[in-house]
Amino acid sequence: MKTEPQPLEAGETSKRLTSTQGVTRGLSIVDLILRIIAAIGTLGSAVAMGTTNETLSFFTQFVQFSAQYNDLPTFTFFVIANSIVCGYLVVISLPLSIFHIIRSAAINSRIILVIFDTVMLALLTAGASAATAIVYLAHNGNASANWVAICQQFNSFCERTSGSLIGSFGGILIFMLLIVTSTVAISRC
Amino acid sequence: MKTEPQPLEAGETSKRLTSTQGVTRGLSIVDLILRIIAAIGTLGSAVAMGTTNETLSFFTQFVQFSAQYNDLPTFTFFVIANSIVCGYLVVISLPLSIFHIIRSAAINSRIILVIFDTVMLALLTAGASAATAIVYLAHNGNASANWVAICQQFNSFCERTSGSLIGSFGGILIFMLLIVTSTVAISRC
Repeated sequence: MKTEPQPLEAGETSKRLTSTQGVTRGLSIVDLILRIIAAIGTLGSAVAMGTTNETLSFFTQFVQFSAQYNDLPTFTFFVIANSIVCGYLVVISLPLSIFHIIRSAAINSRIILVIFDTVMLALLTAGASAATAIVYLAHNGNASANWVAICQQFNSFCERTSGSLIGSFGGILIFMLLIVTSTVAISRC
Repeated sequence: MKTEPQPLEAGETSKRLTSTQGVTRGLSIVDLILRIIAAIGTLGSAVAMGTTNETLSFFTQFVQFSAQYNDLPTFTFFVIANSIVCGYLVVISLPLSIFHIIRSAAINSRIILVIFDTVMLALLTAGASAATAIVYLAHNGNASANWVAICQQFNSFCERTSGSLIGSFGGILIFMLLIVTSTVAISRC
């Protein structure tokens, strides 16, 4: 009778451990899927913005009117930010995320991933919101500063640049989720 | 002789626990100080931008030239974002941060703080970088879009709006540090 409680307790502990590991592994799989979606989103944003180029069908004798993404430095920053984030997601974070599915007890590499994710969240948000400010200006102009809306002339340019923001904002939401799921996983390790 | 190892082990464990608690408490104190600095920075940004107002000394018969922060919707967003973040820091995060110094083993409230911090980091970055895009445009203009630089006329307006970005970018850096220190504290709980 005296030896009975011990195996029972050990069994319970191992059961609880397996359940915790299962939850952590589940979070790691969600983490991997979210990272793949974010990589596709940011890649799409970078490509959509980077290939934006509109030449108007009318031109005067001296000037042909054309608009490219790199006419506006903010859009160039947007393309660079999305490319860096996409590169980070594929090259650094995906291998680590797969490693976490296999070794669910790894804490240090999870903390490193949270640090990188936080920096990338800030970079992506900076690129997307700066581009949004310019897209808003292109659509509406600003009477006080005497800046005219350019979307009447460059209609397709504006549609393309506005659309390319979507993938980036999707990426921002995913990075927020990634930081939170990583933190929960660390607390359960 | 049989009972000797147990008190020794218990002593070692409690020693290790105390050391871990000490580090966690140290991190909590750093957390509190960083939050106070960030609150001052974002408050300064909001006030500096929100009180920006320049009336030019020359005016025509019909129009008096003046520039206010709320002539540009992006600057209004900047003030709102900084005010929300400052309010969150003072009302929600400071009490929780003090609670973490007293109860260093609290995990759930730390996770809640990481969730809020992540959202606030994104909000603050969005406000600051959108405002930066507009400030850049006000300084340099854009020849392709036919937007002129307005800083020649509104010199003090431009200086004030540029300066008000500093507190906000300081806040962004601090939020990054806060998320990382919280994650480290959670991993040690």
